[in-house]
Amino acid sequence: MQTQIIHALGTVRENQPLVHNITNSVVTNTTANALLAIGASPIMASAPEEVADMVGISNALVINSGTITQDTLQSMILAARTAGTLHKPWILDPVGAGVTPFRRTGNQQLLELQPTIVRGNASEITSLFTDAGAGKGVDSSNSSESTLHFIQEKAREHRMVIAVTGASDYVTDGDEVYKIDNGHPMMTRVTGTGCTATALIGAFLAVCDKPLVAAVSGLVCLGIAGELASRNCPGPGTLQLRLLDELYRMDQGTIENFVNVSSLKRSCH
Amino acid sequence: MQTQIIHALGTVRENQPLVHNITNSVVTNTTANALLAIGASPIMASAPEEVADMVGISNALVINSGTITQDTLQSMILAARTAGTLHKPWILDPVGAGVTPFRRTGNQQLLELQPTIVRGNASEITSLFTDAGAGKGVDSSNSSESTLHFIQEKAREHRMVIAVTGASDYVTDGDEVYKIDNGHPMMTRVTGTGCTATALIGAFLAVCDKPLVAAVSGLVCLGIAGELASRNCPGPGTLQLRLLDELYRMDQGTIENFVNVSSLKRSCH
Amino acid sequence: MQTQIIHALGTVRENQPLVHNITNSVVTNTTANALLAIGASPIMASAPEEVADMVGISNALVINSGTITQDTLQSMILAARTAGTLHKPWILDPVGAGVTPFRRTGNQQLLELQPTIVRGNASEITSLFTDAGAGKGVDSSNSSESTLHFIQEKAREHRMVIAVTGASDYVTDGDEVYKIDNGHPMMTRVTGTGCTATALIGAFLAVCDKPLVAAVSGLVCLGIAGELASRNCPGPGTLQLRLLDELYRMDQGTIENFVNVSSLKRSCH
Repeated sequence: MQTQIIHALGTVRENQPLVHNITNSVVTNTTANALLAIGASPIMASAPEEVADMVGISNALVINSGTITQDTLQSMILAARTAGTLHKPWILDPVGAGVTPFRRTGNQQLLELQPTIVRGNASEITSLFTDAGAGKGVDSSNSSESTLHFIQEKAREHRMVIAVTGASDYVTDGDEVYKIDNGHPMMTRVTGTGCTATALIGAFLAVCDKPLVAAVSGLVCLGIAGELASRNCPGPGTLQLRLLDELYRMDQGTIENFVNVSSLKRSCH
Repeated sequence: MQTQIIHALGTVRENQPLVHNITNSVVTNTTANALLAIGASPIMASAPEEVADMVGISNALVINSGTITQDTLQSMILAARTAGTLHKPWILDPVGAGVTPFRRTGNQQLLELQPTIVRGNASEITSLFTDAGAGKGVDSSNSSESTLHFIQEKAREHRMVIAVTGASDYVTDGDEVYKIDNGHPMMTRVTGTGCTATALIGAFLAVCDKPLVAAVSGLVCLGIAGELASRNCPGPGTLQLRLLDELYRMDQGTIENFVNVSSLKRSCH
Repeated sequence: MQTQIIHALGTVRENQPLVHNITNSVVTNTTANALLAIGASPIMASAPEEVADMVGISNALVINSGTITQDTLQSMILAARTAGTLHKPWILDPVGAGVTPFRRTGNQQLLELQPTIVRGNASEITSLFTDAGAGKGVDSSNSSESTLHFIQEKAREHRMVIAVTGASDYVTDGDEVYKIDNGHPMMTRVTGTGCTATALIGAFLAVCDKPLVAAVSGLVCLGIAGELASRNCPGPGTLQLRLLDELYRMDQGTIENFVNVSSLKRSCH
């Protein structure tokens, strides 16, 4: 996997893929900067009059429902449909998926349009896939074991890659499972690090044949950047800008030195 | 008051209260980060379909009218009404209150919904409460004496806490008056420091029984953070990020060393 | 020209002009901070109910179509019309002008309202003025010579100042042409540096009698700030904040030491 991550980063840097983002109003600046720092070319556009055209010229689509309104939801649905028609890969970040009925319904509608990858925290992922009528979610013990079993099952059922992020991140296509232990706790005190993870995965998704590799690559790069950025870091303000610096400086040597990914046994089947 | 501020900060850190923000498009990222840095959990959501639900799960509501449109104003009114019904505390930041007729009317409508606290600069506060049909505002000499008298009168009349910020800040519930002399002039060269003050007060409001203490605590924490951040500071770009670092590092010792609050004699009655 | 730039900066600092921005959702915070750093007073407001009032109290208007929707486009048109009626100077930043039909049409509508200055990259400027029915644009060789000829012709035809930014920047009123060689390549890895250039030109436009001088002044100040900010700079996160610091510190000595502007021979007529 390490070789694949390094290769994927090189391809992003070389191709500077266009990544179209319809995202929330809190992180537009942050995620555009993260995409530029890793070497991609962000497009931030959400008007219904042009999202289909933007999908048409982009290499991947990122949909983040963090501050959806009825209007932006319609743009997201249109963009996701267009991505489906044009066979463009796209990733869904169902921010706060189960928190309100409006978010629940909106994210369900997006899930039905078959994203290539879904990334969220354990509560968002559980809520998204449980509400979809798929039975019980991660149980209250919320152990890694039950989370793992749940996302493998759902990834297989929905034929998509699922990434659950937290202290450890888990990525699966329903068959293979990877655990990522990069990152630093102070990252939770910066708004939008989850959204940034999703955007970065979008950059890798634009150049990788295998969505599983894209998801792992995005999470590893952000995690390593967070580890390096948090060294002697006085606080989350400084961390936020250093994250961008470290994404910009990310290279083969850094990945080789710090990558912390393990392939888990396939617990299902 | 110093003891109460320290206690309030400890409670924010311990409870990580949910603070729901409907704010302007310039400062969403900044204020979410400030809330995370101080230890609270920000929710940024403004769709009319979900603001009432968000108020329901939040511990306090922050409404900032800096870039209101007809749509967001309706969300704000709905959220404020819900807060009233559910007895959730909320704070109004009437940005540019008297600058255009649209802002004047919009902020009046919000004021009528009885915020727990209003925070603004002298011109915003005067405009807001004068337009409400309450007679003359702060006179043209704009002295601290006339400002003080005005806000005490209005706070009593409207039964709310009023915070006027500037070179010195004044906070009153109509009875007690506190003057805060923390802060640094370079803060005026960073966009949204006023909005950040309001958001931080929202965090304290979520955990304090007494709105007066919440307002003083928020202004003291931001003011001290600004003083520390501006030491040998090359400019407002650096100041902006250091403000977040210092909010994150704020603790009992820092407050004890730098707090500059005085209780003024009650000039009314 | 150097003397005029220094004078213009002094006037911005002294007058703190009100600069009204209707801009894209990615850069609202960044451009407001850049305007504060250079010494101007930003207003960020886009509600159709108040944009005309805001133009009325402002000294210049900045319109940036980076994330236009049907609604914000209507606000922009209303604001631009008001600026025309009130003889207030305004600048158009036609972000991604030719990328989608929606942007093409929207930017054409704004161009017809006769901005005082248009600033964009070579592809945006070509697309904007070519679509306007003015024949062929910058040819595929995209040489500086052909770019120069094109913008001189269009500036004369439309009676406006055109600024094309890139590795070198070119500014012309159709008669005089200036070439600016300040700046640093890492600036392309920070989102919104083009938008920031436009906003800064707006600040100078608010105080300069000559739009040509305003455009050159804004580009020189940002370019110099970028050069200084990129010294030993670890990455684009740090660069972004240092840009604000350097704009704040910009003064006569810095301009004298680093300005790199040349007047080109007038190749047309």
